[in-house]
Amino acid sequence: AANVWPRLRDFAVSAWEFGRADRRKVVFGAKVGLALTILSLLIFVKGPFRQLNRYSVWAILTVVVVFEFSIGATLSKGFNRGLGTLSAGGLALGFAELSTMFGDWEEVIIIISIFLAGFFASFLKLYSTMKPYEYGFRVFLITFCFIMVSGYRTRQFIETAVNRFFLIIIGAVVALVVNVCIYPIWAGEDLHNLVAKNFAGVAKSLEGCVNGYLQCVEYERVPSKILTYQASDDPLYSGYRSAVESTSQEDMLLGFAIWEPPHGPYRMMNYPWKNYVKVSGALRHCAFMVMALHGCILSEIQAPPERRQVFSSELQRVGNEGARVLRELGNRVKTMTKLEPGDILFEVHEAAEELQKKIDSRSYILVNAECWEIGKRPDNMDTVDNLIVIEQETKHLTTKSLSEAVLDLRYVQVPKSWDFRDSNSGFSSSHLAPGSPDNMVQKQISWPAQRSFKIDAPLKEEESRTYESASALSLATFASLLIEFVARLQNLVDAFEELSVKAKFKESVVEPVVE
Amino acid sequence: AANVWPRLRDFAVSAWEFGRADRRKVVFGAKVGLALTILSLLIFVKGPFRQLNRYSVWAILTVVVVFEFSIGATLSKGFNRGLGTLSAGGLALGFAELSTMFGDWEEVIIIISIFLAGFFASFLKLYSTMKPYEYGFRVFLITFCFIMVSGYRTRQFIETAVNRFFLIIIGAVVALVVNVCIYPIWAGEDLHNLVAKNFAGVAKSLEGCVNGYLQCVEYERVPSKILTYQASDDPLYSGYRSAVESTSQEDMLLGFAIWEPPHGPYRMMNYPWKNYVKVSGALRHCAFMVMALHGCILSEIQAPPERRQVFSSELQRVGNEGARVLRELGNRVKTMTKLEPGDILFEVHEAAEELQKKIDSRSYILVNAECWEIGKRPDNMDTVDNLIVIEQETKHLTTKSLSEAVLDLRYVQVPKSWDFRDSNSGFSSSHLAPGSPDNMVQKQISWPAQRSFKIDAPLKEEESRTYESASALSLATFASLLIEFVARLQNLVDAFEELSVKAKFKESVVEPVVE
Repeated sequence: AANVWPRLRDFAVSAWEFGRADRRKVVFGAKVGLALTILSLLIFVKGPFRQLNRYSVWAILTVVVVFEFSIGATLSKGFNRGLGTLSAGGLALGFAELSTMFGDWEEVIIIISIFLAGFFASFLKLYSTMKPYEYGFRVFLITFCFIMVSGYRTRQFIETAVNRFFLIIIGAVVALVVNVCIYPIWAGEDLHNLVAKNFAGVAKSLEGCVNGYLQCVEYERVPSKILTYQASDDPLYSGYRSAVESTSQEDMLLGFAIWEPPHGPYRMMNYPWKNYVKVSGALRHCAFMVMALHGCILSEIQAPPERRQVFSSELQRVGNEGARVLRELGNRVKTMTKLEPGDILFEVHEAAEELQKKIDSRSYILVNAECWEIGKRPDNMDTVDNLIVIEQETKHLTTKSLSEAVLDLRYVQVPKSWDFRDSNSGFSSSHLAPGSPDNMVQKQISWPAQRSFKIDAPLKEEESRTYESASALSLATFASLLIEFVARLQNLVDAFEELSVKAKFKESVVEPVVE
Repeated sequence: AANVWPRLRDFAVSAWEFGRADRRKVVFGAKVGLALTILSLLIFVKGPFRQLNRYSVWAILTVVVVFEFSIGATLSKGFNRGLGTLSAGGLALGFAELSTMFGDWEEVIIIISIFLAGFFASFLKLYSTMKPYEYGFRVFLITFCFIMVSGYRTRQFIETAVNRFFLIIIGAVVALVVNVCIYPIWAGEDLHNLVAKNFAGVAKSLEGCVNGYLQCVEYERVPSKILTYQASDDPLYSGYRSAVESTSQEDMLLGFAIWEPPHGPYRMMNYPWKNYVKVSGALRHCAFMVMALHGCILSEIQAPPERRQVFSSELQRVGNEGARVLRELGNRVKTMTKLEPGDILFEVHEAAEELQKKIDSRSYILVNAECWEIGKRPDNMDTVDNLIVIEQETKHLTTKSLSEAVLDLRYVQVPKSWDFRDSNSGFSSSHLAPGSPDNMVQKQISWPAQRSFKIDAPLKEEESRTYESASALSLATFASLLIEFVARLQNLVDAFEELSVKAKFKESVVEPVVE
């Protein structure tokens, strides 16, 4: 018992925090309370309208059942409830009429009709296109059984049906008026914000992946939550994951938003909510590339840091420009403004092109020439190191602010061995590595060569060379995925433009470019 | 009116087909009907138990509301309903007692208590940990309001509460007995089958991607559904998509399965349903690599076919072995047998290692040496072509059945130009290209170079070289992603082994190996 009070207090504190974090939830609770209070006044009705009093419970029931967080959800449930009640009422009255005509067989007819209603309503609601009307089927069944049963008992089929319907209407109207008129919460707005937020998440992940890759971030142990695709608070991971994972939430919000009348900034009949989901889908298509980039960081096969540095400024620039485009688009979704004339992708395409050219002229870094059967290139390693020096002298500092963090790494003396990764305590930035112990139970993904080929020990030399070559190719993969990410942006821009036209976004005010 | 009958007939036919496709849905409908029928018999009760008659509607209501497709869902809803009713009943009786003590202020107390109940129940159910009990909160609110309101009206607080609770128990028991005893439908079984099915889907996609890549399948227009991550019937896409997309379904089934008692092959208290979801998550982690592989096919940057052929048998082998491992694991999940002793990944690791060695010794094919600043390699192109010939003579036909389809492509005379893609009517296998017109409205993802760099026309030479280099690197990316896929399999095997131990899978009978 001594435990109860502190626990209750903790609970109250966390509920208070929860309410402070999203005030709308408190408002929602108060609105439900208010609607119920209004309807509970019905029980004090006396005199000619005392029928209202008697059936008031139905109005209260309707509020509890129909009153949902967003207006779209409330409308869709209200519609389902109305439709279910009406059709069930009609059908039940028909069957009741029929059953009385059969005299002695009345009970049999009632029982058979209840079985049939139960069977068809339950079977048909599993039909995939009927999914949004699941609740309607349930209401249908309840109403039908209710009218049949209580009608039989009281012999007032019609009165039961009419009263019930009337009180449900009252309940629904009160629920709706309270929900719409006091601090309305719109599903469409939630959808809009969700899509805009996804852009920011993917942009953050993209930047994080590129920076992390260049700073040679490594996971000592990959969190098992990432390996089994569960939510995790890893910063690189959570950004794209939430964008990838929001499909079902978007679909749900879309289902509600289409019920909502024009309101606020969405003043248009048939507002193109579907296009928000489409934009989010196109963003997801890009996010999968960010996911693959993150895979290069998660992988055990890692390119040697000195080789990454060769492409550092180009990779950095593509990453920054890509994230800038995503943020810009996200911002425009949020503020509902059209794109400025001119190609928003110009800079990122230029950056990607530059990266591509750099790869083109330095692609020997990406492969391991020592094993070529058509003649070995002499002093390959030295050349690479020389080139790194050349890089440092001639590179264009296009992305000053961010590349400075990388810069000081470049002047660290680079050991000339391939086993660089094992001695790179200076490089392996560890801010991702530690975490709660239960996150880290999983052992690291193991590169096959180390596990299954222990048997051919004499081949060890060859093995390690193979590993080297794989690790160099991993850099090519990273660059290639980044370029593919850029290519996918076009599709995203197209989807955004379709949205901005259909939803009649504001024209962007062309200001003098300040960059 | 002439339209109604054919339409109704069509509907009946499709409902019939729907029922034939999954007999369980028909059974479910019949079970609901049966439970309702049993309870509707209550209305004929006469004599000492006529209270049952009067409140029979509550039992019927409970069946409609609680009777769910799977047993786990029914139990969880029944529990919610019971808990909600009990706690609301207790609280309502307390408030009723309190209100009568206040005499004239009784109405005020009732109204305030209804507001408070409405507020707290609605607010707290939004709390994220309360999600599974959402329905319980609703029942709580309904019951509380019902008892307060109808108790006030009839002055029979306790009788109302007790009768209601009693009838709800009757309804819940009938629903449960009918649901469990007649053709039970288990959520756990659905979860089990879903996970096993996902393995087959990813395996199919993996094979399809590798084969498609080697056969140089290209999308003339990428279906816009893929670009916006919607469901599509593209065979390569649907396999991994359904595995990636099943998260929310798995979570739902998991939420129900943990309610189910031990049954059938799952005879164990605390059956590790969570581990099925974990295995599925690990599979998803692999599926993301398949998704990235598919991205290489979707991409506009494509490696020239003759270069792909160099790595053909190795890629093919990794793809086949990877798919074999997935199918094997899926099968073992399905049949609930442990892995045989020995490394299931041995062959696929060997295949990956071989691919890696091949890349290692031929990595000049993956880059464009002409642009190197440290001296050009002479006759690079000829060398590549020569090597293709060498390949054809020396390759090991490890994967006979599938490589034959590829073989005849190899002997097609290969034009020595880099613009191979434009003249490859013989190669560009078109079984993926056509489709319903609305699928194809999207224009192809465009490689940035072609759009944004029209301005620097004099650089055209350089540009096309850049494109060439990119296209060769795309092959490196494909191979690299495939190897990363193999690396991720270890994690999947670990997750499976954890499941097989926790769920006490059968020992596999070691048969003489027949391969």
